[in-house]
Order: sequence, then C-alpha cells, then structure tokens
Amino acid sequence: MSMAEGFLLAGINCGIKKKKLDLGLIYSKDPCLASAVFTTNVNPSYSVTVSKKNIKTSPRAILVNSGNANCHSHKSGLKDTEDIVSKTAKALGVKTKEILIASTGIIGKKLPKEKIIKKLPLLIKNLGKNTDVFAKSILTTDTGKKVVSANIALGKKKITIIGFAKGAGMIYPNMATMLGFILTDADVGAYSFNKAAKVAIEESFNSISIDGCTSTNDTVFFLSSKRIPLKGKKQLDLFSQKLNEVCLSLAKMIVGDGEGATKFVQITVKGAKTKAQAKQAGLALANSNLFKCTLYGANANWGRIVSALGQAGIKVAENISIKTTSLKKKNVVISVDLKIGKSQHTVYTTDLTPAYIKFNA
Amino acid sequence: MSMAEGFLLAGINCGIKKKKLDLGLIYSKDPCLASAVFTTNVNPSYSVTVSKKNIKTSPRAILVNSGNANCHSHKSGLKDTEDIVSKTAKALGVKTKEILIASTGIIGKKLPKEKIIKKLPLLIKNLGKNTDVFAKSILTTDTGKKVVSANIALGKKKITIIGFAKGAGMIYPNMATMLGFILTDADVGAYSFNKAAKVAIEESFNSISIDGCTSTNDTVFFLSSKRIPLKGKKQLDLFSQKLNEVCLSLAKMIVGDGEGATKFVQITVKGAKTKAQAKQAGLALANSNLFKCTLYGANANWGRIVSALGQAGIKVAENISIKTTSLKKKNVVISVDLKIGKSQHTVYTTDLTPAYIKFNA
Repeated sequence: MSMAEGFLLAGINCGIKKKKLDLGLIYSKDPCLASAVFTTNVNPSYSVTVSKKNIKTSPRAILVNSGNANCHSHKSGLKDTEDIVSKTAKALGVKTKEILIASTGIIGKKLPKEKIIKKLPLLIKNLGKNTDVFAKSILTTDTGKKVVSANIALGKKKITIIGFAKGAGMIYPNMATMLGFILTDADVGAYSFNKAAKVAIEESFNSISIDGCTSTNDTVFFLSSKRIPLKGKKQLDLFSQKLNEVCLSLAKMIVGDGEGATKFVQITVKGAKTKAQAKQAGLALANSNLFKCTLYGANANWGRIVSALGQAGIKVAENISIKTTSLKKKNVVISVDLKIGKSQHTVYTTDLTPAYIKFNA
Repeated sequence: MSMAEGFLLAGINCGIKKKKLDLGLIYSKDPCLASAVFTTNVNPSYSVTVSKKNIKTSPRAILVNSGNANCHSHKSGLKDTEDIVSKTAKALGVKTKEILIASTGIIGKKLPKEKIIKKLPLLIKNLGKNTDVFAKSILTTDTGKKVVSANIALGKKKITIIGFAKGAGMIYPNMATMLGFILTDADVGAYSFNKAAKVAIEESFNSISIDGCTSTNDTVFFLSSKRIPLKGKKQLDLFSQKLNEVCLSLAKMIVGDGEGATKFVQITVKGAKTKAQAKQAGLALANSNLFKCTLYGANANWGRIVSALGQAGIKVAENISIKTTSLKKKNVVISVDLKIGKSQHTVYTTDLTPAYIKFNA
C-alpha cells in the first residue's frame, strides 16, 4: 500500500482500550489543502466541534482516538478537547488551529485526557510510512482494517490517493456514518479539491446505510499535501474518478463489515425523475426494517418495496419493474425501475439480522 | 362488551384465508357522523382511495377484509374495489357512496373480488351484536382480538364508545399504523366529533411505533349513530376523555402485540419547548434501531438516547435527565427530561428483537 507523498502516520495504545491500538496520528510535513464532511447529528462529539473550526485553516495533522466518542460526557468536554489539540500542536511544533481531531467509541464516557497527552511523544516518535498501525488504531467493532489506495501515473509523476475508514454500526449517510481519512499528494487547487470531495462523498459514504442511525461523531477528512500539481480538465477528471473509486471501495468495505450482516446488498433505483429522487428511493429501501428482514429471509416480498417507497413519499405506478439476483446468495443486486424519468442512483446496504440485534443489545 | 346503539356487526370467512374469518361488516341503521384518519403512505391501498372519497358523505357501513391489502396488485384494482363497494351497497339497500372499505394483509396480490361478492348475502344475514366475530375478522398476524369499550352514564342515558383494532407489524404513526374502528351512539355534533377524533388519534395511534414502517393501508374510522345527544362543555369534555381512553387502550394493545416484541416500553419526554418537539423526541427514540436493541438487551446505553435525539435534530444539554424502571422487566417506563421547556408527550413502543426479524423474514 503506497503512501501519499508528504504524509507520515502512527498508531499506538494509550490506555483507552486495554491492549489494542487506540490512538492514531496523521502528520503532514507541509500545511495541507483540506476538505471534510461532518455528521448532521446536532449533538456532536467535542472532537467534531473542534475539527469543524480548525478545518478552515491549512491543517498539519489529525489526531484520532478509538474506544471513546468524546461526546456528551462532562461539562468541560470541549475544553479538554481543546487542551488535547493544543498539546498535540505543541508536541509537533505547529499551531493549535492546524490540528484536527476525531473520536469514535462509546458516547457519554469521559475521554481520559491525561492518558492521551502522556503518550503524545511516543505517538510522534512512531511517525512513519506504516499504514497498518494507523489503520488499526481507528477501529472499534470493525472486524478488520479498511485501507484502499489508487495511483495515477502521469508521465514520470505518480500520484497517490490513499483512504482509511472505520465502521461498522450506526451507518447512515448525511454524514455520520463513520470515520474516513483520504490523503493525496495531488494538487488540484482548493476549488477542484472541494468539488471532487463532495462528489465522491455523495456516491459513496452518503449512499450507504446499515441501521439508519446517524452517529454523533463521524467525519470524512480529505487532505492534500499538494506535492504534485495536476492541471486541465482531463487530469482533474481522472483525479476525481480515482477519488470516487477510493471512497466507494471504502464505503463498500464498511457495508461489508456491517454489524451482524449476512448479506451485501446493492440497490440501484433507475427511471427516477431526478438523481435526488433515485437516492431518496434507494435509501428508503436501505432503511426499511421490514424490507431488510425480507433480505435476511431471502423472501421476495415486493409489496414491502412499494410500501417503503410510499412511506418516503414516492408514488409508484403498477408498471414498476423490480429485478434481483438470488436473494439466497451473500451478494444481492437489486434494480428498481420507477419508469417515471431518466435518473438513477445506487446505494449499498445489508440485511437486518438477529445477529445485529444481539450485537447491539 | 356492550355495543353502541344503532350498529350491527358481522364476520365470516369468504375464502381469502383458508378457514379463519376474513370478511367483516359494520352496519348502521341510520346515516352516520363520520371521521377518519388515513395512511400518509403515497402508494395507498385501493380501499383507502375509495374510503377517502366516501368518508365525505354520511356512511352507513364499513366492509373490511383481512389477508389481502388490496394494494398495487393490478391495473383494475381501483375499479374492482368500486365494484365491491357498489355490490355491498346494493345488498344492503343503501347508496354506493355510503359504503366505506378497509383491507389489510399482503400487498401486491389481487383481491378475489368474486369470492367477496358471493358471500355478501351471508355476511349481511349474520349482522348482529356479536362483537367477537367482527373483532376476529379483521386480524392478520395479531395474536388476539383487540376490542375496548367505555360507557358514560348521564342520568338515564348510557352512552357507549366501542373500538376495534388490528396490528401488529408496520406500526408507525402519521396514520398508517393499523386498522381501527371506533363506534359510538353519542351525538356531539360534527365539529366536536372531528375535533375529539383528532385529539384521540394524536395521543394514541399516532404516538406508537413498532418498526418505523408506515403501511399502505391503515386507517382509523370514527362513526357515530347520533342516538344520544350530548351538550355543553362538561359533557363534550367527558366524551372526548372517554374517546381518548378507548383509543389509547387499543393503541397500547397493538404495541403489546408487536411482532416479536418482548417488552412494552412507555417513553415520556418532558421539559421540551413544545408538545410537537416532545413527540418528535419520543418517536426518534421509538424508531431508533440501536436504542431498541438496547431495550432488548436491557443494557443502559444512554449515549444512544443522545445520539438518536441528535439525529432527529434535537440538541440536548449535559444536564439532560434520563430515568427508567428496570430494563429487565417486561414493562419499561422511561422518562427523559430535556430541561429546555415545559411541554411533554408520551409514546409507546417495543424492543427490537431477533424474533421480529425471524417473523418478518
């Protein structure tokens, strides 16, 4: 897995979890071009609040902890988070506002600030090109690490896009969803970078749902070290395409690792009036408990599709077409043609299973 | 169970189901005062479409079938339904527009029109005061009939309110929810009758959720035979109160019979800015899969309350108060105090269980 130029990574245990890696760091030698999408949950983690402010600068690092959501735990939670960020900046020799922070884990439990601060020197000492330790340090209930990279060869230049993610419950778009860290050395300029990030998010992380629950924490960060300039529509399009691929691969890995899921389900809604309607229809299905029970039971109860679409306000005619591969296989592809327009969108989800409930009980 | 004056009931098997009762009839000797709330699902049953039109008159009867949703099955579904209604009117000697119709069962399967029409004479012949047969004829996956009645004694007059309902999956407010038939002999006038029906719905059928799924069919009808006049604020208030009690009892019976549920959960949200906000908060919890897994597991994970409220757009302060009776018992009472205002609302729900999934798979 090749790293994007200009970035270093680390992952250690700081004592939030007993033994597993629980503290990660992404560091950039130079100020980065940055973009991010944050949860729409109005009770966000203190980490989200701080990162929302600092994303407006040119960040140098992202500190990530797993095992604790750093959310709704105590009155000085925000101040504690600012302290951690300030100490991280000091240890790295950069400005406080150049530090982003992300957390994932249990809500309502005080983040052990001192444990994190104490281990900052070790974390920084460990910075290197080992993608594995960082990928593992951000996980919670995930069954494995989620890393994807892509390259673009342009003459002698080789551009890298590398993405890290964690799932695996509470997966529902409109940001929330999960943590994602997408790093690249391509310099496409701020405008194109933001635009490409937005497009990539829409088709990937915002098009998946596991349980319809939007968490308090989740965030996808995009950082560019701006080492290799790209220019012209063709190069920008190629970058955008590769960024989409990386994000979609990560999003699919998250769905594939959905808590208790036995099936990976791709739902394409076509023949919609608008792309937004196609997406709304797809997510209406991906979020319907009854429909997802149908998927688990491999029982082709199409009435539940009509009902779920109707609940979401989407009228369907009698000539609606529903095609699907075998519901008995692990991978299911469903195609719903509304036959009222020409737009389409694809979403990804899992079945709802007894194991999901036991997992979350 | 005493019947409201002026009404007769029947329930028979017409062959939609193999042996169980599947066709019911409510008949009024005189034209009724009527009110109804219909599903918000935009792909409604043909029965809903016809009843929505006919509710504007003074109905004389409601025909109900169970085992088939009469929804999205074939192009002439609406015409077939109008035929059934017309034949029912003829057999009863009333006008076509005086017949209401309701269906519940599988979506997408053609309703056997001829079987119903053939049995209309038998159905009408069976009209009487036996509440049991009607109560049973409207059931689908319910484990038992749901009938509640209340009386008001006013001097020598005795007013009756009797309600019938069926659940038990796809229970989510904004009408959908279920079928309900509330009959009374009280004459409170059209304005007060409508108003009382609306209030009763809000606090009962629209305050319950089992799986967050809004069906294509469900409807609550209110009919008054106008036999016994009520006048003055005190009498009207008493009527409204009793109507609320009947509806709330039925709604609770539906929740208690939720598919696969092991717990009956009452959630009161208080300290909200408005009643609407309190209800929104309550339903956000009642519809959160993660929170409902918590209920099943009897695991007090309060972070999920903060997260579910935040997903619904409700900001909570660190001083939010959450009180609950033992999560290990069958009946759970949860009280959430948002501490941002003075309004409150109570909703009712179940836990999400492996049995629910197996049931619907």
